[in-house]
Amino acid sequence: MNYDVIVIGSGPGGYVAAIRASQLGLKVAVVERSELGGICLNWGCIPTKSLLKSASVFEYLQHAQDYGVTIDGEAKADFAAMVKRSRGVAEGMSGGIQYLFKKNKIDVIKGTGKLLGNKKVEVTTESGEKQEYQSDHIILATGARSRQLPNLPQDGEKVIGYRKALVLDKQPESMIVVGSGAIGSEFAYFYNAIGTKVTLVEYMPNIVPVEDEEVSKQLARSFKKAGIKVMTGAEVTKVDTSGDKVKTVIKTKKGEEEHEADIVLSAVGITPNLENLGLEDVGVEIENGRVKVDEFYQTSVKGVYAIGDIVPGQALAHVASAEGIICVEKIAGHHPEGLDYGNIPGCTYTVPEVASVGMTEKAAKDAGYELKVGKFPFSASGKASAAGHKDGFVKLIFDAKYGELLGAHLIGANVTEMIAELVTARKLETTGHEIIKAVHPHPTMSEAVMEAAAAAYDEVIHI
Amino acid sequence: MNYDVIVIGSGPGGYVAAIRASQLGLKVAVVERSELGGICLNWGCIPTKSLLKSASVFEYLQHAQDYGVTIDGEAKADFAAMVKRSRGVAEGMSGGIQYLFKKNKIDVIKGTGKLLGNKKVEVTTESGEKQEYQSDHIILATGARSRQLPNLPQDGEKVIGYRKALVLDKQPESMIVVGSGAIGSEFAYFYNAIGTKVTLVEYMPNIVPVEDEEVSKQLARSFKKAGIKVMTGAEVTKVDTSGDKVKTVIKTKKGEEEHEADIVLSAVGITPNLENLGLEDVGVEIENGRVKVDEFYQTSVKGVYAIGDIVPGQALAHVASAEGIICVEKIAGHHPEGLDYGNIPGCTYTVPEVASVGMTEKAAKDAGYELKVGKFPFSASGKASAAGHKDGFVKLIFDAKYGELLGAHLIGANVTEMIAELVTARKLETTGHEIIKAVHPHPTMSEAVMEAAAAAYDEVIHI
Repeated sequence: MNYDVIVIGSGPGGYVAAIRASQLGLKVAVVERSELGGICLNWGCIPTKSLLKSASVFEYLQHAQDYGVTIDGEAKADFAAMVKRSRGVAEGMSGGIQYLFKKNKIDVIKGTGKLLGNKKVEVTTESGEKQEYQSDHIILATGARSRQLPNLPQDGEKVIGYRKALVLDKQPESMIVVGSGAIGSEFAYFYNAIGTKVTLVEYMPNIVPVEDEEVSKQLARSFKKAGIKVMTGAEVTKVDTSGDKVKTVIKTKKGEEEHEADIVLSAVGITPNLENLGLEDVGVEIENGRVKVDEFYQTSVKGVYAIGDIVPGQALAHVASAEGIICVEKIAGHHPEGLDYGNIPGCTYTVPEVASVGMTEKAAKDAGYELKVGKFPFSASGKASAAGHKDGFVKLIFDAKYGELLGAHLIGANVTEMIAELVTARKLETTGHEIIKAVHPHPTMSEAVMEAAAAAYDEVIHI
Repeated sequence: MNYDVIVIGSGPGGYVAAIRASQLGLKVAVVERSELGGICLNWGCIPTKSLLKSASVFEYLQHAQDYGVTIDGEAKADFAAMVKRSRGVAEGMSGGIQYLFKKNKIDVIKGTGKLLGNKKVEVTTESGEKQEYQSDHIILATGARSRQLPNLPQDGEKVIGYRKALVLDKQPESMIVVGSGAIGSEFAYFYNAIGTKVTLVEYMPNIVPVEDEEVSKQLARSFKKAGIKVMTGAEVTKVDTSGDKVKTVIKTKKGEEEHEADIVLSAVGITPNLENLGLEDVGVEIENGRVKVDEFYQTSVKGVYAIGDIVPGQALAHVASAEGIICVEKIAGHHPEGLDYGNIPGCTYTVPEVASVGMTEKAAKDAGYELKVGKFPFSASGKASAAGHKDGFVKLIFDAKYGELLGAHLIGANVTEMIAELVTARKLETTGHEIIKAVHPHPTMSEAVMEAAAAAYDEVIHI
């Protein structure tokens, strides 16, 4: 079969690229060896958000009385039901991708794809049959998997990755989460919220270490208040899975401590899926473990493209989607702008939520900027008080000279929805005063964005 | 005593004006006859949001099982506790204003203010003592009260306004809400959610009649599904409060029907507080029931200003605050821009929430624009599925010729937080493609904004 575009991998990079390509009049096929929608939809973003929602409902029940709601009996987290709901949500979304592919007349080829060179892709089905396809443009969008640490080999039973953490047979009584990026922090919050005793271990001095330090410290405070044991500057040096529980040795600057738990979750980053793709055979260059691409995602081989977690840039679903769209718009002869990797938001869906875009205060200082920094706490927000969500703040960082919004760092309820304003404002080259003078509705959490900008310019009203 | 600025009224217009004036180096006093913070803070925005939060927690409890949370017994709405919580939140916020006044060295004069002319304000205390104050600039910010309809006189017991609806002695078994603007709709949602039998009566053909028609229809569907009886094109022509219940006659195009309820809530708009202010004596002109002001809120009398619900423009807290800031910045010799009344967001905090800014589709068509309209339903949003909030949509209206975003109409969970992006984007003169190409984080409800813009330009991915 001949196509204009074959996409290998149907995650948020691949399926979005395929749909946009079809929209642009190209004949498209997608090769997928597993579920449509990839990790994000089946084993990442979507099912985790479902579990986190269950946890947040459970927390509301536990604090129902604060809101004037009484319960006769006791609220219980039904772990199996929560997992079942999350699988249902993921399956529904995966079914949605199937519908979109059909609607957009995109062929789905089940199996594992491999480059043969000469515009050819070989697909091997589960039963081992091989079939060749031809396409002028081949997009690699194979994503990534949980990274294995030498000291922390995953056995999939007691030492697990995010995938297994979504479908454990029963709720563990105790869990050690290693790594406090978005994935580690979200699972730590979830399991703690439903009653598992959680220890969160982070090698760096602060949890969510890519975030602004003030955000990290606030999240650590909130986590500790919620009962999570937070260990920073800490490293798991040994695991012993021979007994009923997992015994670990955790090294901190105070020395080595032994900790044990039912489950150890390793959430120390990801490894791009670059194996068995035929990259070496056809001459696709790799640099620092990622596929080398130009501004429009063409690899060193003409007609072969790569997007998503296998190329440089943030390994995030929305980055992969944006890359996929730009890649196929270019293929279709449009003139897309290159992606601005400096204006990519990042979200962590814990309680409180974390969302940010642009430079941290430290990065901006290190880059030599003179700064105007404005911070507004949700404790001073009427809506936050009414909603019972007073933890957190909005912090905005402006270049003192030209007023450019260099970075935005938010922690609190709903901030994963609020960050979009700042991404769009940065896209539109906002200054502080344009945010201050945009009338934000009262009473909302979003007023804190306006007030944080005002705080940077000594015009804040409510603090 | 002499001041640079005296503000009469400490609502969101007055207290914000006072704080900003003090920040700008002016000597300021605020005259207030009741609670600091005005209606918004004590009897409007803030306590209603508190009650609505209680209702939403109660609804989560009723649907806890959907999220994998089980309850032994039954969840009950404790109306008195909900009211008590809301009063506590309001009092806390009012205390916050007191703190801000002290911090900003703003004098608070308790009593009722009146213009005497010649830069003089007379304040009459509750006990009847009168005192005169002098100020170069006097800002009237006296707000508004519930409008009384001739056919629906409020007795404060069985036929009530919003104020009483916040502090009823007990939860009524049944309620007729007359008027389906933000206030009426929010109370209808709240009381229905906690188990009161609610009838919502709207004179216009659609509820929330200032909103885009598609939003109105969606809210009506959601309200009906939730059990609210919605009557549009309907008018209460008679009330009889002589019995235990209130008997009403409601006229629709089908004829007249009798309906009775424990309580009738009149939410048919507001009346500006213009009485006993000395306006006529000093020559402040009134036009169409509002104080006539220039672009910077000076009335027809030099040195006398008016802001908020007593001047033309949307009667909303955030409008009053913005007007107050502009007014005092001008007084202080700054050069503020005039307020763009075309870019004011409006929010209704029902379930689903409603938020909008700019022109409705009908208004834009009537204004002669050729349109590109994009709509994205939350049923196609991964985050909405995971959160269990699939009702609603984002609708964006662009001018086909220049790409200007003419209006944004949102209904669904969290949209009152999401509208800020569109206000700021409009402030920054966005086009559709700048929203499409701003990378919105996945998975969020805010992706629907990007997708709605993409839908307007036939680039939408997920539908």
